Amino acid sequence: MSVTAPQGFVAAGLAAGIKESGDPDLALVSTASGRAVPAAGVFTANLMTAAPVLVSQDHLGSTAGKAAAVVLNSGNANAATGAPGRADAERTCAAVAADLGCAEDEVLVCSTGLIGIPLPVEPLLGAVDELVAGLTGDDAGGAAAAEALRTTDTARKEAVARAGDVTVGGMAKGAAMLAPSMATMLAVLTTDADVDPPTLQRVLSAAVDGSFNALLTDGCTSTNDTVLLLASGEAGPVDEDDLARAVAEVCTSLAEQMADDAEGATKVVRLTVAGAASDAEARTGAERIARSLLCKCSWYGRDPYWGRLASELGSAGIAFDQERVSVTYGGVTVAAGGVTVDHDGAAVASHMDGRHLEITCDLGLGDGTATVLTNDLTHAYVDENMGTS
Amino acid sequence: MSVTAPQGFVAAGLAAGIKESGDPDLALVSTASGRAVPAAGVFTANLMTAAPVLVSQDHLGSTAGKAAAVVLNSGNANAATGAPGRADAERTCAAVAADLGCAEDEVLVCSTGLIGIPLPVEPLLGAVDELVAGLTGDDAGGAAAAEALRTTDTARKEAVARAGDVTVGGMAKGAAMLAPSMATMLAVLTTDADVDPPTLQRVLSAAVDGSFNALLTDGCTSTNDTVLLLASGEAGPVDEDDLARAVAEVCTSLAEQMADDAEGATKVVRLTVAGAASDAEARTGAERIARSLLCKCSWYGRDPYWGRLASELGSAGIAFDQERVSVTYGGVTVAAGGVTVDHDGAAVASHMDGRHLEITCDLGLGDGTATVLTNDLTHAYVDENMGTS
Repeated sequence: MSVTAPQGFVAAGLAAGIKESGDPDLALVSTASGRAVPAAGVFTANLMTAAPVLVSQDHLGSTAGKAAAVVLNSGNANAATGAPGRADAERTCAAVAADLGCAEDEVLVCSTGLIGIPLPVEPLLGAVDELVAGLTGDDAGGAAAAEALRTTDTARKEAVARAGDVTVGGMAKGAAMLAPSMATMLAVLTTDADVDPPTLQRVLSAAVDGSFNALLTDGCTSTNDTVLLLASGEAGPVDEDDLARAVAEVCTSLAEQMADDAEGATKVVRLTVAGAASDAEARTGAERIARSLLCKCSWYGRDPYWGRLASELGSAGIAFDQERVSVTYGGVTVAAGGVTVDHDGAAVASHMDGRHLEITCDLGLGDGTATVLTNDLTHAYVDENMGTS
Repeated sequence: MSVTAPQGFVAAGLAAGIKESGDPDLALVSTASGRAVPAAGVFTANLMTAAPVLVSQDHLGSTAGKAAAVVLNSGNANAATGAPGRADAERTCAAVAADLGCAEDEVLVCSTGLIGIPLPVEPLLGAVDELVAGLTGDDAGGAAAAEALRTTDTARKEAVARAGDVTVGGMAKGAAMLAPSMATMLAVLTTDADVDPPTLQRVLSAAVDGSFNALLTDGCTSTNDTVLLLASGEAGPVDEDDLARAVAEVCTSLAEQMADDAEGATKVVRLTVAGAASDAEARTGAERIARSLLCKCSWYGRDPYWGRLASELGSAGIAFDQERVSVTYGGVTVAAGGVTVDHDGAAVASHMDGRHLEITCDLGLGDGTATVLTNDLTHAYVDENMGTS
């Protein structure tokens, strides 16, 4: 259940031949009517911005926040491809628009895959008729679209949440380069709420901040990150707070699925820095630890080496007093006042053996707190990324 | 040839029993006279500051830049050890001072090894008499001291440079956690130049900036980083610029030895970012790439995947125009104007197969430039760091 769960949406996915493997690589999510509805987007902060990101931003601007469809491909990021890459992205939108009967700028476009290689646009364009013909509003349509987004993802990522009569559905891809802001991640959300574009954008931006932007696997920010939300209006109006909760729920679920599927990871770490001088400083500290190769290797080795965490906090550029810091693994405090304290080593070892780690560092200075989701650094991660992927 | 190369210095090293392995773990560098001479230091910026760093900073302050000796141990960092750790560092200085016949605050102290574990100070103190008795001014003394600094270093690190009649010698340890500012690195330099403490500090700070602070292996800044320079005065006065060049030469050699010996590394990468809006922005961009897990894995895989480098520059928070960026491997330009260009793939592949990579990214925006030394991310690095080390 994903993007076709809300009323008024159809989806499809197929193999267009962009991937050499022949796996599915082209997806489409559209309104069932083919008409544009309110739409919102959050995009990568990377200035090495991929062509589809530039085109989707342009389109959302020229329509003042309306879209009829999102076309997505995996297997090629259409990034570092210059003016020809932007032309390819525009042609993709135009082909979909022609079949749906909407304007070109009412189609948004996302790509994920290799950087710096021209998009194989001819096989993509050649598959658009079949893609549009295959659009369905059932679960299979949503599943086919989510399947076609996968690159190194081991499973498709889908989520659904409800707010009264309103439904929010979403699909995503992302298994590496997951870092604030966002990651190599694409997500398309749909809802049948009746809501105007500015409200939709506000709800989406807030949800992304608390979910995808709190996910940091390997510290790399991609060129293509895009999160889109379309609202068909078919289920009628909804309280904004209720919609915000449902959108946040879907985003959080998708982010957790990404953390669970991070390339080569054996651990999903929920890392909280508390007691900081401010929430922003807590976030800086948590991100510093989440980016630390030494900390990530420790987690892989199931080693509760708290000194490495404290050392990162001490060099994070935030307020820090080594005589106040404490560290807790799975609720067991191993260090307090900046030194090791007596603790139940067996309980800590048992926690470190699990797949999900809960680590808290308390700076003892103030009320600032932040939580990030991150992963360990493993042999398999190195294997995955030592070649082009 | 290292710290005993300049006139007026003696050194020794032995196994005191701090390391469980029984390997050498205690070193001493002293003036031959046992009297204090001008001294300068540069210390870690990590606020999780280790006890020996705090004590050495205090001592250099109370003596206004004089020292007679530096005592160093490996096997334990005496970090995250609280007030007892500082007392242990002071007792170590006092024991050495008693044997040399100098004041306690004329002895500096450095430690490297595990964090968060009390220093085994009794075996250390028990070995001081033998250590002092073993001090010699020949090469063997310097070599024994350098040997006793090693933790995961595969070889001792020594260097010597000359400026007219003046000699500068140095020894260091460091094989991981090498990042600005500095690293888990200790270095002791000696010179027989006749120079006052303020000049010595100026010369040392400048040399560290261009050498150890341009070295970034895994992005972690340690709790213990210390570089010290003592000047016996026995070779007479020297032009400050000449001394600065010799000190920089020794620091650069030691930094290069560290990069060559980085934990698990198969590549030493000299990475230059040019054409930036400023030198500071170039440095930010180079450090961003040097910290990137994806770039580091690419180097390990001998993969000239320039899109990963450009993606890091685009998200480094510096001025960036994707249509101006170019990337060169070993002098061969693989991308220009933000897109892949025709190039000699065989020449690039051959360069990527070597141990020493030269990579330049030109942002095409200004005159800012910076170079860092860094390494690849390998299975062996993960092995080395998944446990406590």
